[in-house]
Amino acid sequence: MNLITLKSPYLIFLGDVTELTYAKTGAGLAQWRPELCAGQLTLAGGSVDLGLPPMTIEEAANAGVGSLIIGTATVGGVVPTSWLDTLVQAAEAGLDIVSGAHGRLQEIPHLAAAAKRSGAKLVDVRVPPAALPVGSGKRRTGKRLLTVGTDCAVGKKYTALALHAAMKQRGMDADFRASGQTGIMISGRGIPMDSVVSDFLSGAAELLSPENTPEHWDVIEGQGAITHPAYGAVSMGLLMGSQPDAFVVCHEAGRTHIAGWPEVPLAGIAQIIQRIVSIGELTNPGIRCVGVSVNTSGLRSAEREEYLRQLERELRLPCVDPLVDGVEPILEQLTAEVAPAAEMA
Amino acid sequence: MNLITLKSPYLIFLGDVTELTYAKTGAGLAQWRPELCAGQLTLAGGSVDLGLPPMTIEEAANAGVGSLIIGTATVGGVVPTSWLDTLVQAAEAGLDIVSGAHGRLQEIPHLAAAAKRSGAKLVDVRVPPAALPVGSGKRRTGKRLLTVGTDCAVGKKYTALALHAAMKQRGMDADFRASGQTGIMISGRGIPMDSVVSDFLSGAAELLSPENTPEHWDVIEGQGAITHPAYGAVSMGLLMGSQPDAFVVCHEAGRTHIAGWPEVPLAGIAQIIQRIVSIGELTNPGIRCVGVSVNTSGLRSAEREEYLRQLERELRLPCVDPLVDGVEPILEQLTAEVAPAAEMA
Repeated sequence: MNLITLKSPYLIFLGDVTELTYAKTGAGLAQWRPELCAGQLTLAGGSVDLGLPPMTIEEAANAGVGSLIIGTATVGGVVPTSWLDTLVQAAEAGLDIVSGAHGRLQEIPHLAAAAKRSGAKLVDVRVPPAALPVGSGKRRTGKRLLTVGTDCAVGKKYTALALHAAMKQRGMDADFRASGQTGIMISGRGIPMDSVVSDFLSGAAELLSPENTPEHWDVIEGQGAITHPAYGAVSMGLLMGSQPDAFVVCHEAGRTHIAGWPEVPLAGIAQIIQRIVSIGELTNPGIRCVGVSVNTSGLRSAEREEYLRQLERELRLPCVDPLVDGVEPILEQLTAEVAPAAEMA
Repeated sequence: MNLITLKSPYLIFLGDVTELTYAKTGAGLAQWRPELCAGQLTLAGGSVDLGLPPMTIEEAANAGVGSLIIGTATVGGVVPTSWLDTLVQAAEAGLDIVSGAHGRLQEIPHLAAAAKRSGAKLVDVRVPPAALPVGSGKRRTGKRLLTVGTDCAVGKKYTALALHAAMKQRGMDADFRASGQTGIMISGRGIPMDSVVSDFLSGAAELLSPENTPEHWDVIEGQGAITHPAYGAVSMGLLMGSQPDAFVVCHEAGRTHIAGWPEVPLAGIAQIIQRIVSIGELTNPGIRCVGVSVNTSGLRSAEREEYLRQLERELRLPCVDPLVDGVEPILEQLTAEVAPAAEMA
């Protein structure tokens, strides 16, 4: 399969950062895939602690760690020189190096040379795999759920991860399918859809959730928003190629305009549902919305409940804040509507 | 501006092809931009004649020709070795070399060396310009018309060129905006939208039809089809970034399925209009369809007229075969609906 694929287990490299907000990728890994995180490595001056066992490069190599994952954001997307010795040491010890930064690892000469000597891979998760196919539009067996958004950064990845976790807990056969860099690091595989050449967008999406057994669910991380003035085409290619049976709309309560586009008002959730169905029907006539996932952190707790209940009355769909309520009501709707219990035995 | 831009006038290179179908790019240039075509160059064994003055490289250089344009398709997208001496000679004489093939000119060592010595440019029109912006969604002044399709290869480029020519004939201020490789060669500038990285699709489309005077028309060549299982996202990014005031649907009479996707039925023209309006309204609330352009070459001439009249009754829009009827009825509709005569003084 033509996906970016990471070698586990992981050593999470935290550099010398001192604030957790800069270590979002590492924190996401520790939260969602603790079983794959063998340890964390912090440089002198760094103070972020993900609660993983501290581990040197040597210890990691001896413990059979597969990849060092750069778990922190870098200023300007460039790997700081103060990190370089450690990364070179890891590559020399045979650990793959995984980065989500804009600058390419292969373009750091010392690192490229070390990786060449040891056979370690330098993996830039922003770079899509080569030789992606053109979309076929053919129906694939297996079931698919896609998270979509009213905007960027409204919880599409979080909601997909939470739904996947809840499915696994119920004993359902399910995979999380990552379409963006952080998701790829958490999942260990995926395709960064926003970096794919346009002609191959839906082909890449088809590859991301391949044919599977009839009861299997792919929970696909959405990108952008179908109404987004810059990224709408990415959302559309992912939607058409994913041919989802079900989708969940993600939203942030109180957001009125596209973030960063102050002159573009946000489309309403009902309008998003209608658009997604209208486009999604092209590759899956059975597509339906099974719930809404809202980040309500901007509301006072007194307003929160009323906001979600009002939304439920309006849309006749389960509406939850996944951090507060979990995603069980959405999963109930899903199993009732798309995958009756009998089918999931 | 961040567009591919070609240096005119042109020498059309026809290699050694013997059938006009392989020289479509050259034929398009000779048809639509005869004033930019200084001559044609055929190698021994070639027999295609575009009716341009025959011209050697030396003559072309002396006549101040700016670019040699490879006007024929190449097998497997690779420049045949039998062409190489001539191309190297042209590059050495300072002519830019322009290719629409998949293989990159820069990767042909002799040619790259010759171009380096003379300062000639090697232009691959399949390669989008660097540093494209992200879409802004902001309204731009000036007017825009986009051709859209029910499928690929239904006359979107031809219709746009015909509309642009008819506008110029009426004395309207108008530009043809090319979004694909052949269109770029004809127009001398443009962006190959299908090769743009997804994140920058609508940004590239915005760049393609920049702000202009209020009465100016950009006639934008469409790509793919909004319902196409593989290329729908390209169509969508181009639509959102183009923010057209008007659009024309292009169709081939008798086509029932997406070409190359035998299991995907073609959407009806009315359905295409509805989808285009629904998406186009996001960046231009005034968007409207002003006509339908049909390739009726598959119909017997007795059926042709009835087919178009039936379509007109159904859609209440002018429906023409541009090769038979021209595009004046569409232009009439456009000027009546979007740009009243008073406005175009």
